[in-house]
Amino acid sequence: MTSSANPFGVKALTFDVFGTTVDWRGSLIREAEEWGRARDLRIDWAKFADSWRAGYAPAMDQVRKGQLPWMNLDQLHRGILDKLFAELKIEGVSEAEKQHFNNVWHRLHPWLDSVAGLTRLKTRFVLATLSNGNLSLLVEMAKFAGLPWDAVLCAELFRHYKPDRETYLGAADLLGCKPGEVMMVAAHPNDLKAAAQLGLRTAFVPRPREHGDRNPDATTDTDFDVIATDFVDLAAKLGC
Amino acid sequence: MTSSANPFGVKALTFDVFGTTVDWRGSLIREAEEWGRARDLRIDWAKFADSWRAGYAPAMDQVRKGQLPWMNLDQLHRGILDKLFAELKIEGVSEAEKQHFNNVWHRLHPWLDSVAGLTRLKTRFVLATLSNGNLSLLVEMAKFAGLPWDAVLCAELFRHYKPDRETYLGAADLLGCKPGEVMMVAAHPNDLKAAAQLGLRTAFVPRPREHGDRNPDATTDTDFDVIATDFVDLAAKLGC
Repeated sequence: MTSSANPFGVKALTFDVFGTTVDWRGSLIREAEEWGRARDLRIDWAKFADSWRAGYAPAMDQVRKGQLPWMNLDQLHRGILDKLFAELKIEGVSEAEKQHFNNVWHRLHPWLDSVAGLTRLKTRFVLATLSNGNLSLLVEMAKFAGLPWDAVLCAELFRHYKPDRETYLGAADLLGCKPGEVMMVAAHPNDLKAAAQLGLRTAFVPRPREHGDRNPDATTDTDFDVIATDFVDLAAKLGC
Repeated sequence: MTSSANPFGVKALTFDVFGTTVDWRGSLIREAEEWGRARDLRIDWAKFADSWRAGYAPAMDQVRKGQLPWMNLDQLHRGILDKLFAELKIEGVSEAEKQHFNNVWHRLHPWLDSVAGLTRLKTRFVLATLSNGNLSLLVEMAKFAGLPWDAVLCAELFRHYKPDRETYLGAADLLGCKPGEVMMVAAHPNDLKAAAQLGLRTAFVPRPREHGDRNPDATTDTDFDVIATDFVDLAAKLGC
């Protein structure tokens, strides 16, 4: 490895997953539309997907602030789903069907470049998730989507959600790395800023279609170690 | 999946690693012999390997009983290595070289059937390690040896070593499984008995060459859900 190819001395890459690696919104809408058609429901599933995701940050913050006991993401998603079903008067859904619906987050499709980029990056770096998703969610998603992680790390292991420091530093520790030997890869500037403050390297990979026509993560900030258009570009920029 | 092919309703397999999946002793002896030749050392490296491994159980038990603070396996291995080097008067080894030597446990070779068997099993089950090795050790070994784990689980995540119950039950919980939906795979009856007592399923895969000519794990016990001659046979017996 030449120093110019890997100027950061990075050994491991940790990846945000929802939005950065997989297209949660597009995947959710497609599966929900199909389910709704079979039940003859007239629901705006794009709005439904946005509402489901929008409920996640406040629920997680309640856990982060100790207002709720530890709950993993499947449990948080389920609480929000039950509220949405009640609001939209979606009734007569069996418990098994609700569980299956809630597990749509285990069946998200990768962005088109994700598997190719990860496969190249894996030849040189340890690749780990660092997601607020729970372990079984991420493991099932990896099998579903063909994501070649070397390790599945997540908030659940630390009982802390990102951006709590325990997640970034805990991941570096488990990977046997100093913080500066780990590069956080994300489409969300806030995730990267939290990582950078703790000494991790950062790669910003914008995903402008994550939220459809909205792009709340658009930024003019260029204060990242690497900016790449997708995972294949990231591989090239890291000398893979 | 027919019920006859998977009569146990198992969703995930958790694997012991040292001895069950990889040939720690043969790998260690080969690498140490090469190192010793380069330094013109006259050491019985088979005996050395056995002594290094023999130091592990008492060191780990001190952690399990709270006589030592939590230390991961790399740290336990290093303590034993330093003692062995002192006893054998192996001197003039730099710190970097000692670290590299200690990390031989990250570079262990799989048994000849391991990768082929795991690859078949992975098509139907979630495959996780459940090892007393630390996470970075297991991740580096997987890359070195081509072991296609879906998840790397280990004592370090629970701050408890096998056979503490926290390891088996913690692994099942992280995998989103009831204990009975997880099958522990090991060459060591004691590991399997501890798992079975907590409700996990068990697969015994004897590795009679793990310790060379000795076989401390030989047993006439047949009280396992599956007994397989190797991982390929295990795949066949679980319908893969």
